[in-house]
Amino acid sequence: MECENYNLTRDMERENLNLNPLQRGGILPEAAREALYDFGDGYSVCDYCAGRLDEINKPSINNFLGDLAKFIDSDLVRTVHGAREGKFTVINKICNPGDSVVIDSNAHYTTYIACERAGVEIIEVPSTDDNEKKITMDNYKKTLEKSIDELGEIKLALLTHVDGDYGNLTDAKKFGKICKDLGVVSLLNCAYSMGRLPIKANEWELDFVVGSGHKSMAASGPIGVLGMKSEWEEIILNRSPKYPKKEVEMLGCTSRGAPIATLMASLPYVIERVNNWDSEVQKSRKFVKELEKIDGIRQIGENPTKHDLVRFNTPILHEIGLKHQRKGFYLYEELKSRKITGIKRGQTEWFKCSTYGMTDKQRTYIVDSFKEIVEKLS
Amino acid sequence: MECENYNLTRDMERENLNLNPLQRGGILPEAAREALYDFGDGYSVCDYCAGRLDEINKPSINNFLGDLAKFIDSDLVRTVHGAREGKFTVINKICNPGDSVVIDSNAHYTTYIACERAGVEIIEVPSTDDNEKKITMDNYKKTLEKSIDELGEIKLALLTHVDGDYGNLTDAKKFGKICKDLGVVSLLNCAYSMGRLPIKANEWELDFVVGSGHKSMAASGPIGVLGMKSEWEEIILNRSPKYPKKEVEMLGCTSRGAPIATLMASLPYVIERVNNWDSEVQKSRKFVKELEKIDGIRQIGENPTKHDLVRFNTPILHEIGLKHQRKGFYLYEELKSRKITGIKRGQTEWFKCSTYGMTDKQRTYIVDSFKEIVEKLS
Repeated sequence: MECENYNLTRDMERENLNLNPLQRGGILPEAAREALYDFGDGYSVCDYCAGRLDEINKPSINNFLGDLAKFIDSDLVRTVHGAREGKFTVINKICNPGDSVVIDSNAHYTTYIACERAGVEIIEVPSTDDNEKKITMDNYKKTLEKSIDELGEIKLALLTHVDGDYGNLTDAKKFGKICKDLGVVSLLNCAYSMGRLPIKANEWELDFVVGSGHKSMAASGPIGVLGMKSEWEEIILNRSPKYPKKEVEMLGCTSRGAPIATLMASLPYVIERVNNWDSEVQKSRKFVKELEKIDGIRQIGENPTKHDLVRFNTPILHEIGLKHQRKGFYLYEELKSRKITGIKRGQTEWFKCSTYGMTDKQRTYIVDSFKEIVEKLS
Repeated sequence: MECENYNLTRDMERENLNLNPLQRGGILPEAAREALYDFGDGYSVCDYCAGRLDEINKPSINNFLGDLAKFIDSDLVRTVHGAREGKFTVINKICNPGDSVVIDSNAHYTTYIACERAGVEIIEVPSTDDNEKKITMDNYKKTLEKSIDELGEIKLALLTHVDGDYGNLTDAKKFGKICKDLGVVSLLNCAYSMGRLPIKANEWELDFVVGSGHKSMAASGPIGVLGMKSEWEEIILNRSPKYPKKEVEMLGCTSRGAPIATLMASLPYVIERVNNWDSEVQKSRKFVKELEKIDGIRQIGENPTKHDLVRFNTPILHEIGLKHQRKGFYLYEELKSRKITGIKRGQTEWFKCSTYGMTDKQRTYIVDSFKEIVEKLS
């Protein structure tokens, strides 16, 4: 049989400034590119495996997992296929079908889907009814207490550390305390935070944290991180009666190849960049301020922002599209002609973006491009 | 914090002849290495996503999945994280905890673990009580009929197409017919066959097939293939009520990055090599014959073999180790000094190996090396 042409070339990151928040934290540093070269083949990390992925010492997955646990202040960690797979593993193991879990209403769609897959009901903590759309810990506590009153027990509470719609940073430490005080198991989704900003699972008294290698830890996808308190080890990492080396919830091994090699190679780089998080936030705020100088562009979500993912309402860009011969596509095309990508084709009423990791010069160029487009066309 | 040194270099495939059957089918061809370079970054396949991984057309994941379905004669396919994850998805969705499933006793450990994770009981079809350890379809039918008689219903029957212990090839077509006649849903584990030899899911009347990209389809791990009859689409690929684009069992998207890019790039190469399967089997048989010329080396499993994974009982190698100053380690070390790897350190009583994809010259070199070692040391 003949195969179609799959268009298997990509120069998005090489040739453009990519504003897609989904992709900015997953760009590989040089060391990870080298690891990708060495560990590209299938089952490449299994050369010296004696039956346990987490105990392989060439490459030193065992040492790496120890460092990773330390990095996020967690008792122990496993790699999973992504944050969503980590969430499903916890929900599916802790809850029974029909149980209810509490989640914040800014949760990523995969939190909802993981709940649906596990057959559990969802109770939502509302966000604030304003342009900031914050998940306050007052609201979380109220919803959780009310749910416990009504249902007798809530087995699991999930919070999104930084959401993917507004880039709002929630108060993980308060969340941990609320859950602990109420006797509810806690899970923090750090897909947009672990690898960008400091995570302190134990200091925040969290039972579980999940992170995403491809979203925020400079790794090839798909790979995620599941950190937990040691008291959960026997439950979440229970061994098979028939194959006592194998962890059932991990289906034996999870990350068997390139993703874990790149995550390992990137860890020193990621540790370093997390140390510089405050400076990234300052740069993000400056970027917002500059863009907001354009009449008709206004940030929504927590203000001032505490993250690189920022969302804007952009009525001026929408108005231009109403009169432009290319309709709403003009924006994508104007940006593309300036080698700026990552805002969806046809979208003009609002957008979210990130300039994470870009140089000052690149950020200025992007702001100037928006200014230029608006000046030219409005 | 300081990271340990993770020993993140690998020259196993570049510098050695690797006999590890787990790894021989996952070596990337040039086109896949190029794809790896372009799609190494996290979430790299998501540049032009409109919400459905399987519908992305740059790169053409949609066309690819169509070709892949055609390649394995299946109504439709999804990529999953590996054969094990594919098996779990099917078992977990088709069965309820406490249900019983029938599997062959040569099944990979992950079949057992996937059953354990889904909370289902296992009924085993025994292998033949001889050196061949075959799973006959007579035995399968008997066990399945008996199980239905005793329990009233069996929801799922699993068969390992080629097992990882003996490299025995089972009769998938008969299995499909037996299951269909008895009204039992069938799942064929093709981790060691899809990508090496032809798979005909519909011709064999199978409900589900799973394959492994990193094991047998020349892809970076972790990635697998789940093929199914279209009648299962609504159940296995059911959409979220809240996010109607998203498939719940897939947790929205599965293979978000390098593994799917390499699987796509490798497909034309894999199709080509599957066409040459008969010649690979002939070469494997010749390799067995040559090795068996050494007194005290005898193939076990189906004979003549129908696969590249072959297992040998090797009493002569064990005897040498009893007297050797390096004990059982001598074999690994002798082979390593000849740039031959993939047989576990310290193991001498038996080994399994594969020369899949090697040249005639390389195979001859390996046989000669074994002969030389035995002659020198026995």
